[in-house]
Order: sequence, then structure tokens, then C-alpha cells
Amino acid sequence: MAAPARDALQFPQASRNHIDNYLPRSDPGNPSHPSTKPHVTLTFATSLDSQLSLAPGVQTALSGPESKAMTHYLRSKHDAILIGVGTAEADNPSLNCRIQGVGGYGGEGLQGQPRPVVIDPNGRWQFTADSKVLKLAREGKGRAPIIFTQIPIDTKRRELLESVGGQVKVVDPWSLTEGRISWEYVLDVLKHEHIRSVMIEGGGAVINNLLAPQNFGLVDSVIVTIAPIWLGKGGVQVCPDERVEKGARLPVARLKDVKWVPLGDDVVLCGLPGQV
Amino acid sequence: MAAPARDALQFPQASRNHIDNYLPRSDPGNPSHPSTKPHVTLTFATSLDSQLSLAPGVQTALSGPESKAMTHYLRSKHDAILIGVGTAEADNPSLNCRIQGVGGYGGEGLQGQPRPVVIDPNGRWQFTADSKVLKLAREGKGRAPIIFTQIPIDTKRRELLESVGGQVKVVDPWSLTEGRISWEYVLDVLKHEHIRSVMIEGGGAVINNLLAPQNFGLVDSVIVTIAPIWLGKGGVQVCPDERVEKGARLPVARLKDVKWVPLGDDVVLCGLPGQV
Repeated sequence: MAAPARDALQFPQASRNHIDNYLPRSDPGNPSHPSTKPHVTLTFATSLDSQLSLAPGVQTALSGPESKAMTHYLRSKHDAILIGVGTAEADNPSLNCRIQGVGGYGGEGLQGQPRPVVIDPNGRWQFTADSKVLKLAREGKGRAPIIFTQIPIDTKRRELLESVGGQVKVVDPWSLTEGRISWEYVLDVLKHEHIRSVMIEGGGAVINNLLAPQNFGLVDSVIVTIAPIWLGKGGVQVCPDERVEKGARLPVARLKDVKWVPLGDDVVLCGLPGQV
Repeated sequence: MAAPARDALQFPQASRNHIDNYLPRSDPGNPSHPSTKPHVTLTFATSLDSQLSLAPGVQTALSGPESKAMTHYLRSKHDAILIGVGTAEADNPSLNCRIQGVGGYGGEGLQGQPRPVVIDPNGRWQFTADSKVLKLAREGKGRAPIIFTQIPIDTKRRELLESVGGQVKVVDPWSLTEGRISWEYVLDVLKHEHIRSVMIEGGGAVINNLLAPQNFGLVDSVIVTIAPIWLGKGGVQVCPDERVEKGARLPVARLKDVKWVPLGDDVVLCGLPGQV
């Protein structure tokens, strides 16, 4: 076994045991004949006032080092990580997995590295050769992204993306629901790319959209980290649109089979979508 | 010992052990010469999107039976419970303690029953002889409220309140800070009423005001229950006003010495105000 990579993260077995029931099953079925929707894990970290960051485009350190290690452990258990373009632009994210033992961090090839997926309807993500996700793909420390867009991106960027192994998926108008790229379509395309599980990490628009009643049924499990801090008004908030039926307001989404796991100063909530 | 009262609640010792460190110390000092500010415990229950209720004035069942029993245990450990007038009007609250063994629920007299305190700057709380808090006081199952107001309330209501042992505190203009009754003043009055600890339960305006940097220092401990549900936009939200220093947004409040205690489907966060 290779020596531990210098920048690799550890996530202890005891902590893994708490959350493994909420992760995709490792049984691969027959990956050359995908027949079912990929397992969708919705995961994010918020403040007590349900905010992802202090303001749009501002990266805000919320959760502690243990929670960071957990996120990377989760990434090692999924075939893909999905984010919205706002997060890609704001955070210049790595979108790879740095858990000790995965490919590039003590492991062989790209084993355990998830495929980054960016939802970018208007083709606005201005990635360059220096964007972290592209650099890591070039260095063999992560996979190259798939971008879903309605508007073809320029040749230079497309070629840059393809040079590291990435792809652009230009979405047909029929795959839109109310002007948005439909989740069913995205998951169907990913299924045909042999992706059996996808971890959806943010940002606010993506999360709130998935919590809506018409989409929450596509989610298989939810893992939320909460940090003991209030950010105050004006941040990017996880708070889905209100639900009104027969003139009465109702809760929008509920979790069942919940488990709360204290982790450092934070808590991790694991649950499955329940009836509201 | 009297038989358990039919409607009394139980809160197991194992759960008590988790939170007792965050409660006022029972050492009474010299109650006839109060010298220090009452211990302030800020406590409330929210959804994952940090909401107290689906809409202003709408009572929303969020937390489970275990959390309800905990709230009543907390009440038994404080000399007073404080709420804002919005909550008094919306919820017709009991504001008593129904834990097995306190006065009225298997215990003697009013032992363990907290004094309700209502902050009602404009004297708008339209309580009647049928309001729960007054009925319970009449029946010996709770104490009668103290109301803080700037505007004297009408004689009929004042006499009704006083008939069950309640009081109106008409606040002088000098006790206002930016048009609000100052917390220092309220706590000072309560101290002179021999109240050594107060549990502040809500609603949104009161909680958000206490989380503000200029007030959070008055809080000694925080106990928040979080239920695994999203209520969606438009509810009553715990989210303090933003904090900006030198043009930059900063977190508003943070907890230290935190402990997360799973309780039924909910989690209880205990913590002390920390530096932001």
C-alpha cells in the first residue's frame, strides 16, 4: 500500500458506521445495462438560520474539520457530485475526493473519484485551465466535469474541457420543466453515463428546487450538517418556496428514519424523504 | 407522595443529565438581597429552515413529545418564563410547568412553577378570564403573569390580572432603547422581584432581538430544538439582522461549549454564547 498522501483526509470508521445506512448501496448491479435512476443524496451544510453563506458568491466557512472529512468520505461513495453554476463560479471548487486511499490520494488511478456535474443552463461558467476542477483532472487527482447547458459553450472552452476528459451536454428544449432543466432528464443522462449515484451539494437554488414537493421524490437520502452559528439576514438560505393547498399553508418537506450524529461542534442529520 | 397527576409529563433522568450543565445553578444565594442579573436561558424550537411557525399567528406543531417534556422540565428549573405579546396572542399559551412533581402536578403549592412574563409595549394583549394562563393561576396550577408595557392597560383587565396575583409594570420612557423596552431594564425589574432565572421562549421578534450583538451578552445559555422538517418561505423565522463591520458582512452570533442531544426525531442543541 502506498504511503498516505500528504493532503489526504481521514474519516474514522466509527463515524462511517453512523451514516453508511444512508449511502448508495455498493452492489453495482449490471453497470453496462443501467435500468434504474441513480441514487440521489442531497447534502449541504448550513448555519442555525439555514444559510449556506453570508451572501451570494461569498464562500463562508461554516462546518469544522470533521465535517469536511465527512463530505470527502461521502464523495468517495458516489459516482458523481452535482452543483449549480452559482457554486461553480463562487467557490472555484475542487469537486474531487481527498479521502486517504482514493485515486490520487494513495489509491490507484481514479478509483473512488466522483464525476463532477455542473448545471449551467445559460452556459455562463467561465472556467479556465487554472480552474481547480480542471487542474485536478489534468493531474490525475479527480475526474473532469460534465456540464449541462441549454446554450452551446464556445469552442475554446469546449475543447479545453474535452482535453481533460470532460463533456458538454447541450439540453434540448423538450427536457425543460417550467424553463428549468428537468431533474428527470439530468438523472436519465447520468444513468446512461453509467453513473449509479449522485451527490447533490448545492447551491441554494439547486437545493431549494429539490426540496419542492414535485422534486423531493427523486431524492433518496438527505445528509445535512448544521453548525452552531447564526449568519443573519441577507445570506444564501435553504428555504424552499411555500406550499399552499386549499388555501392553507403546509410544511414543504419532512424527513423520516432520521439519525442525528454529533461531529465536532456540528451535528449531521441523516434522513430519508418522508410524507408531509 | 401524591399519585402522579393525570396530565403530568415525565422527562427521564438520562435526558436531564445531558442538559443540566446549561441550566441555572440551583444554589439560591441570598434571595432577599438579589445582586446579580437573573440567569437568562434562550430557548425555542425551529424547523430545519429556522422557522418557528408556518405564518405569523399560526401555531405549528414542530417538535415531538420528548421535546415537549423537555420544555416543561426547563420551565421547572427557572423562576420565570418570558414571551413577547405576539406569542401570547397567537398561542393562548399555558406558560406553566406540567412536569410530574411540581406544584399543581403532584407537588405542593406552586413549587417549581415559573412566573410568566409578557413583553407587551403597546398594551395590546387582550387576555380574558378564560385565557389559559389566568385560568391556571386561578386553579393553583401556575403563577399569574407580569406584563411589561409602556401604555397603562384598562382598569378592568388590570383588576382581572391582579385578582389572580398578576402585575402590570408600566415602563418609563427612560427604560427604552431605540424605542424598545431594554432588556437590561426588564432583567433589573425581575431581579428585584426575586427572580433569579428566566427562560425566554419567543417569539421571533424577541429571539432575533436577543441574538443581536448588543443583547446576546445578556444570554447565559441557549437551548434550541430542531425538528427534521422544512416549512418553506413565509413563516416566522429565527434569523437576526445582518451584521456589517467595516463594509464586510460577519456572522451575527455563535455558540461555544456546544452539545447536541438527539431526542426522539429532533435534536436539542445546548450551548453558551461565544465570540464571533
